[in-house]
Amino acid sequence: IECVSLSPMMEAVPAPPESERVCVFGTGDMGRSLGLRLLQAGYGVVFGSRRPHSSSSLIPHGAQVLGHAAASQSAHLIFIAVQREHYDFLVPLANQLKGKVLVDLSNNLRKNQYPEANAEYLQSLVPGAEVVKGFNTLSAWSLQNGPSDANRQVYICGESVEAKQAVIAVAIKLGFSALDQGFLSVARELEDFPLQLFPQWRLPLRIAIGLSAAFFFYLLIRDIIYAYVTQSKDISFRIMVSLANKVCPIVSLIMLSLCYLPGVLASFLQLYRGTKYRRFPDWLDRWMLCRKQLGLLALGFAFLHVLYTLIIPIRYYVRFKALVLIINTPLSLSLSQIRENRTTQFDTTTAWRGDSYLSLGILGFGLYVLLGITSLPSVINTLSWREFSFIQSKLGHLTLLLCTAHTYLYGWNRFLSSSTYKWYTPPGYMLCLVLPSVVLLLKLLLITPCVDRTITRIRQGWERGADQRNPKDSQPLIP
Amino acid sequence: IECVSLSPMMEAVPAPPESERVCVFGTGDMGRSLGLRLLQAGYGVVFGSRRPHSSSSLIPHGAQVLGHAAASQSAHLIFIAVQREHYDFLVPLANQLKGKVLVDLSNNLRKNQYPEANAEYLQSLVPGAEVVKGFNTLSAWSLQNGPSDANRQVYICGESVEAKQAVIAVAIKLGFSALDQGFLSVARELEDFPLQLFPQWRLPLRIAIGLSAAFFFYLLIRDIIYAYVTQSKDISFRIMVSLANKVCPIVSLIMLSLCYLPGVLASFLQLYRGTKYRRFPDWLDRWMLCRKQLGLLALGFAFLHVLYTLIIPIRYYVRFKALVLIINTPLSLSLSQIRENRTTQFDTTTAWRGDSYLSLGILGFGLYVLLGITSLPSVINTLSWREFSFIQSKLGHLTLLLCTAHTYLYGWNRFLSSSTYKWYTPPGYMLCLVLPSVVLLLKLLLITPCVDRTITRIRQGWERGADQRNPKDSQPLIP
Amino acid sequence: IECVSLSPMMEAVPAPPESERVCVFGTGDMGRSLGLRLLQAGYGVVFGSRRPHSSSSLIPHGAQVLGHAAASQSAHLIFIAVQREHYDFLVPLANQLKGKVLVDLSNNLRKNQYPEANAEYLQSLVPGAEVVKGFNTLSAWSLQNGPSDANRQVYICGESVEAKQAVIAVAIKLGFSALDQGFLSVARELEDFPLQLFPQWRLPLRIAIGLSAAFFFYLLIRDIIYAYVTQSKDISFRIMVSLANKVCPIVSLIMLSLCYLPGVLASFLQLYRGTKYRRFPDWLDRWMLCRKQLGLLALGFAFLHVLYTLIIPIRYYVRFKALVLIINTPLSLSLSQIRENRTTQFDTTTAWRGDSYLSLGILGFGLYVLLGITSLPSVINTLSWREFSFIQSKLGHLTLLLCTAHTYLYGWNRFLSSSTYKWYTPPGYMLCLVLPSVVLLLKLLLITPCVDRTITRIRQGWERGADQRNPKDSQPLIP
Repeated sequence: IECVSLSPMMEAVPAPPESERVCVFGTGDMGRSLGLRLLQAGYGVVFGSRRPHSSSSLIPHGAQVLGHAAASQSAHLIFIAVQREHYDFLVPLANQLKGKVLVDLSNNLRKNQYPEANAEYLQSLVPGAEVVKGFNTLSAWSLQNGPSDANRQVYICGESVEAKQAVIAVAIKLGFSALDQGFLSVARELEDFPLQLFPQWRLPLRIAIGLSAAFFFYLLIRDIIYAYVTQSKDISFRIMVSLANKVCPIVSLIMLSLCYLPGVLASFLQLYRGTKYRRFPDWLDRWMLCRKQLGLLALGFAFLHVLYTLIIPIRYYVRFKALVLIINTPLSLSLSQIRENRTTQFDTTTAWRGDSYLSLGILGFGLYVLLGITSLPSVINTLSWREFSFIQSKLGHLTLLLCTAHTYLYGWNRFLSSSTYKWYTPPGYMLCLVLPSVVLLLKLLLITPCVDRTITRIRQGWERGADQRNPKDSQPLIP
Repeated sequence: IECVSLSPMMEAVPAPPESERVCVFGTGDMGRSLGLRLLQAGYGVVFGSRRPHSSSSLIPHGAQVLGHAAASQSAHLIFIAVQREHYDFLVPLANQLKGKVLVDLSNNLRKNQYPEANAEYLQSLVPGAEVVKGFNTLSAWSLQNGPSDANRQVYICGESVEAKQAVIAVAIKLGFSALDQGFLSVARELEDFPLQLFPQWRLPLRIAIGLSAAFFFYLLIRDIIYAYVTQSKDISFRIMVSLANKVCPIVSLIMLSLCYLPGVLASFLQLYRGTKYRRFPDWLDRWMLCRKQLGLLALGFAFLHVLYTLIIPIRYYVRFKALVLIINTPLSLSLSQIRENRTTQFDTTTAWRGDSYLSLGILGFGLYVLLGITSLPSVINTLSWREFSFIQSKLGHLTLLLCTAHTYLYGWNRFLSSSTYKWYTPPGYMLCLVLPSVVLLLKLLLITPCVDRTITRIRQGWERGADQRNPKDSQPLIP
Repeated sequence: IECVSLSPMMEAVPAPPESERVCVFGTGDMGRSLGLRLLQAGYGVVFGSRRPHSSSSLIPHGAQVLGHAAASQSAHLIFIAVQREHYDFLVPLANQLKGKVLVDLSNNLRKNQYPEANAEYLQSLVPGAEVVKGFNTLSAWSLQNGPSDANRQVYICGESVEAKQAVIAVAIKLGFSALDQGFLSVARELEDFPLQLFPQWRLPLRIAIGLSAAFFFYLLIRDIIYAYVTQSKDISFRIMVSLANKVCPIVSLIMLSLCYLPGVLASFLQLYRGTKYRRFPDWLDRWMLCRKQLGLLALGFAFLHVLYTLIIPIRYYVRFKALVLIINTPLSLSLSQIRENRTTQFDTTTAWRGDSYLSLGILGFGLYVLLGITSLPSVINTLSWREFSFIQSKLGHLTLLLCTAHTYLYGWNRFLSSSTYKWYTPPGYMLCLVLPSVVLLLKLLLITPCVDRTITRIRQGWERGADQRNPKDSQPLIP
């Protein structure tokens, strides 16, 4: 078959096959995986190795292995899948590499391991080549299994536009989407990327740990130490379940309100400023960016709270109390007679309150889980923007409302009883109600018709006091 | 470096970089995000703005800002990221825009906001340009974060094939996959798309709400009003937990059977017609398309049922009943002596029935959750068609079987006791058993060897009474 | 508009539109779906059909239908969406098909249905054409709904590099990423692919079923048959909940340790060999590849264990025992007086132990669920390699530690009591502690500073006894 006969199709798939060749230096995990993927995408692959003969058994079927110098002659694009420590072998090849595109795939073991980025170091060793940093955020595993099982985005940077175009073209054929991040000075950032450990989770995690610790000690003093001091009773065993089951819901509710507070604050800021075209202060921006993490951590604590609550009836302490009651009853018949008048009178209000309290908790948790599921990346993908904001804003505030009402019903009439305030401190659930109540009140203000109308107009681009005859040429597509 | 030296690579990445330029009108959220993405994909980007000087601080680094007229000269493809209200500024530019490709990104705030689609309006303003509607289903956020975090599909429409090809090429380089939906008359549909709010969820949600309401009132009358009328007892507090815990499993089981009923009906229809080449009636088609949503709602109700069941022992009402029993026992020793003969006789059958009932419920719920997890888009992707249909059909019917058996065991011997039928009405669990029993019976019929053989042949393309010497040239790849 | 005016853009999108034509033989589900997708991607589509007139109503709007011969003339690339049984209609067309690229989409109903692969059979019928096998792993449904809802990877194979390049180009424009798997002899493998049923789940599932069955019978003998033989008590009803709730946690813990054991063994093997460059034995490789499945099955059993535990208080048996206690107490006042000294003495140690046992279980299950969520494909995508290994290794071993401690606390002081060993056999929880204890001990050894240092060096490419002046040119990017 002549290539010519394929012409209408083949213009997109460039040129005769023999020139569709790329070179890979290095036959480690990364080099081999990349080579295999390149072969599968239809490229011819030539490996460059110090010991071509001993390496030939390792490389994927269909590829060639040559010495470095010979290999570099066979292709214009060379992937450098070698550790930075061994880059000096490239120095004697500087002449052959002149004008070639070198793609630096390397990563480091920790941040700031070397004074300059690996890619910049490579460029300094082979000044005549066009160095492009890229593909380093992929693992050998994700290269083998393809972009459907791993992030599709590949980040590149480099000085030469043509070199980057060539790398982008390869990335697209491998099924990735390449994003040009700028000049080679960005390389350090790209090299730090795979070394990051949950950067967006740090602040929310610190908040969660801080809140947990604070409320743990607060409740430890109020419940356990108080009982020890005033009644000399050792109820330290309560730390494991009772206390945990107080800390979890408290932290969960506070973090859920922290998740919705910045949105409310942002709305008020826009109202106050009368425009949406001014940037939010930095702290608010950073806060808004970690709302998802705050919410997911809140869900985690709520999940633990549910489990801690459900195991209550099988606790030794609870079963023991029931047993004591059973055994003691006959001994204290007269006492029970008295008690009877009080306790055996079924109190419908208490039943309503107790069941409502449980029911609101269950519904709140159900919505919580729904919010969590719609935070999964693959579920978000199937939602339109309007659907996503409906769930995360409308259902989110409803969840907060249900959980807050659940907590109010838990407190019930104990808010006014002075015996609640041991050592003049309020119980934990009272403290944790402050923030959600504030958020809900502010949100209520925002959805009153007159405020809502102003906010909507501002989000559509209207500006208070602006010259309306000279509209902004910007497009707030997302209201 | 000469571009020529890159030639084998660069044919795929077209032409010299200076001509790889696109223009974006509008420097709002959408315009800036699109511009940034275009820059990262290797395009040169020129923004068009009314006030180029004041806008230049806003636009992403690496892009240019010019006046609209000058900007439009610099590129063949122009993205219009401006709100429809401001489109009139394009009228004086009509001459410069002649022959250019204008991509209309705009969306509206609600359906039918304007008499014609924005893209058609744009075309009428600039008749000499080639208007393509597209990219409007993306949010600024998903443009910035790339297709891995948002839907990869971009829908376009327009009159000119060449213009659409140009837009498709850009979409592919940005990492999206563009689908041509036809002529510009489709634009209205594309503009309505981001305004949709869960269109496939509406029918299932309505069914769920309708069933919940119907069974809520039915059980309200049977349980609470009945007790009030016949015994003057106020047990209204039971609404919150007991009633909810009856409505949830009932609705869940009915919706689960509604999820499997259409598949069974379709099989019988194919059997009756003797061919798979005739379309199903519209109602059946629509029903089959919302099976996933029916199943997920059923799972939601099952989840609530589990939670409502697990909190039973910590309810005030339940603990109160136990307390009364304890306190009353010594007072009614003689009574208890009599009762003893009845109750203290451990009934192994009841124990078997009770434990089986719970165990089937747990296993059914476990499978339910498994079905839910395999409905996640990212999990579906990893399954082959055969695996998907194994889980959703085989395991799905097994789930239905377990949950139905769970409900039968719940009823147990109460089906025959006349005291069950208060006011001559059957209890809720009996009503909800009808549909799943029918579905399971029909399914049982379908998997008997002789019926199964016929169904399989029909699905492989066989037709009853068809001329077998003249086979259909169609391919039922998916059995 | 002249195509020339579009040139900078259009070079990537090849050639004049009239030549961008592909042909599809067959108007079944698959043919029509593929045709629609091709049209949407901007291709002209010509269907080939035996009865072009009767087929024209079926095909998507915008496509043409011709007879096979005429259709084959109109395009260079022909998709064969016809069942293998009907391939003979191609024989008379052999001349027209000479030099064309034929893409065989067909699948079979079961493995080894035919002596040779469908694609090889097609090639033998039309020897002059270039047959490419591909796209067969997609369903008609996933073609219609696009790659965001289904696997993006398309596998192809064939003899001609140019033909495969042409098919790859089409796949990319449709939004898929095509992987060339080699020559046509691979076709059989590709055809078997959609017939697979959870190949990686088989071994883990067999282990789970084997372990469940073994422990079920072991505990059946120890608990139920022992009670029957020694005390003539029929407690067979316990099979449904009590026994299930023993089998589930036992199997879960063993499978969780089986999930972490191979990693530990691999580390010791690397330590022993002093290098990471030798392949692991096959059994270890296969074991390591099914760790995810082992872990997810373990999570499933843990989930059932949690549910079985939480329903304990609502079991008939448990409520019956409480009732008997209440009723019997007054009758045995004197007995209770004696008992009182023993039982009504609240034992803080027991409370601590019981609550810690529950709390560790809850935290362990929470982490378990977290591990499960981070196994979802879409969540993995958002993690860097370091984050993934942090969660799966650090948090994974922590989960194992918590669950093992939970089980030790369950056993508590019963390990030493001889009454525990009925018929001289240890109880189930004791047996299941062996493996996790071993794994945790080995892991503890591995993280002692001196061993950890050696392991880290080996994973960075260091080799014991190797000539360090001649470093391997490989790059262990992933430690």
